[in-house]
Amino acid sequence: MPRYALKIEYDGRPFSGWQAQADQPSVQQAVEEALGWLDPGFAAGARIAAAGRTDAGVHATGQVAHADMQRNWDPFRLGEALNFHLKPAPVAILAVAEVPDEFHARFSALERRYLFRLVARRAPVTHLRGQVWQVLNPLDVDAMREGAAHLLGRHDFTTFRSSICQAQSPVKTMDEITIESLPLPNGQEYRFYLRARSFLHNQVRSIVGTLERVGAGSWKPERVKEALEARDRAACGPVCPPHGLYLSGVSYPQDPFADRESPG
Amino acid sequence: MPRYALKIEYDGRPFSGWQAQADQPSVQQAVEEALGWLDPGFAAGARIAAAGRTDAGVHATGQVAHADMQRNWDPFRLGEALNFHLKPAPVAILAVAEVPDEFHARFSALERRYLFRLVARRAPVTHLRGQVWQVLNPLDVDAMREGAAHLLGRHDFTTFRSSICQAQSPVKTMDEITIESLPLPNGQEYRFYLRARSFLHNQVRSIVGTLERVGAGSWKPERVKEALEARDRAACGPVCPPHGLYLSGVSYPQDPFADRESPG
Repeated sequence: MPRYALKIEYDGRPFSGWQAQADQPSVQQAVEEALGWLDPGFAAGARIAAAGRTDAGVHATGQVAHADMQRNWDPFRLGEALNFHLKPAPVAILAVAEVPDEFHARFSALERRYLFRLVARRAPVTHLRGQVWQVLNPLDVDAMREGAAHLLGRHDFTTFRSSICQAQSPVKTMDEITIESLPLPNGQEYRFYLRARSFLHNQVRSIVGTLERVGAGSWKPERVKEALEARDRAACGPVCPPHGLYLSGVSYPQDPFADRESPG
Repeated sequence: MPRYALKIEYDGRPFSGWQAQADQPSVQQAVEEALGWLDPGFAAGARIAAAGRTDAGVHATGQVAHADMQRNWDPFRLGEALNFHLKPAPVAILAVAEVPDEFHARFSALERRYLFRLVARRAPVTHLRGQVWQVLNPLDVDAMREGAAHLLGRHDFTTFRSSICQAQSPVKTMDEITIESLPLPNGQEYRFYLRARSFLHNQVRSIVGTLERVGAGSWKPERVKEALEARDRAACGPVCPPHGLYLSGVSYPQDPFADRESPG
């Protein structure tokens, strides 16, 4: 059975998250239903696997999943056909590539990248509603960077992990937390770029929610280090809402989409 | 009666346009209803006037309107109160300023600025749905710029004017058409910036729809000149959809918002 990797973008607002659940709209189900129009295996209930199981309201611009098809497809045509059947759901297949049987969207991934968009302005956002987390007052970006620096490297991230996280170990290596500050016509946007081999459940939202407290002046940057060292969920800042979070990319030993035709 | 200028941002999707109409949701009505919570005149049906009467689906990031209130308001508090009462409509008051009685949002305006966002990529847009016009193939931006150059200056724009346009004269002066080309991760965005004292009905959408034909290679750039000189609506390219269009700013002899407190 030929295996295809799919690069997927979605607006998380109408979904209960990536993962298929009974009686809840999910991105996984939307993609599987589109596959079901093209392939008898998926019509009969075959499943796809994804690199990141994003929560309700979380977006993606670079989710990766793989699907086993019963016949060979031209990757470009498969992407076009899936986009046709996905309408009108806000889910788009950006690229398709045939991959070896050993490729697994989740287990072969070497790195995941997340973007968190935070907008500070008093007037409610309109066009960006559901696509950013909004706070009212500008934040101290240098303080947030100082706080973030304590989280880089290999640590026990128990503090920044949801109580329902199923990962076997709370020890993760954070390879990057970059914070950009971009002026908006009537406010300021802060973009948090996080990069790691893998993340714990709610880890990005726990980190950004904590750093926002630092940026607002409620926390000193060193308190992030104390919170991390406490290894105690209660030491975490408030977990921020999901709708500023984007799974922006996944890396593999070889980029499956490097030189493939793509519908993007 | 003190007069206040309001700088307004909105997502045009849920509205039949700026202008209040019976049985149709409009931005004007949304703002007037919010004013009705604060002022007996508006509760009794007073109206506001705006610089640009945007069509259904058209957005704004810098619409300007004025409102006559029965009592004095601190501009910042008026903006905050309006934003409170506007919820959950995707309309935000970015700034409020007290202005002289001679100020009229429409008749005092010296210049209007529009942005049109066009995205070229094969996969359907998700987060930008309803906020850009999408085409499938990349466009030739140099050819579009060459075509646009024919439209600069003072011309009879009959070709680029809706048949229901109510302006007394089709002669307008186009001060700027700048086209930016921005790479997206899986496509290309073209931003058209247009600037004039005033515009005819559907003028921006007629121009962008025509320039897209040039960018796609269906029209030679010189055909834009021929179309303009024909002074014939039938010579226009296809009028493009409204949802990439933004009223981005309005200029007055003195900027009312230059040094005022704002909720933005």
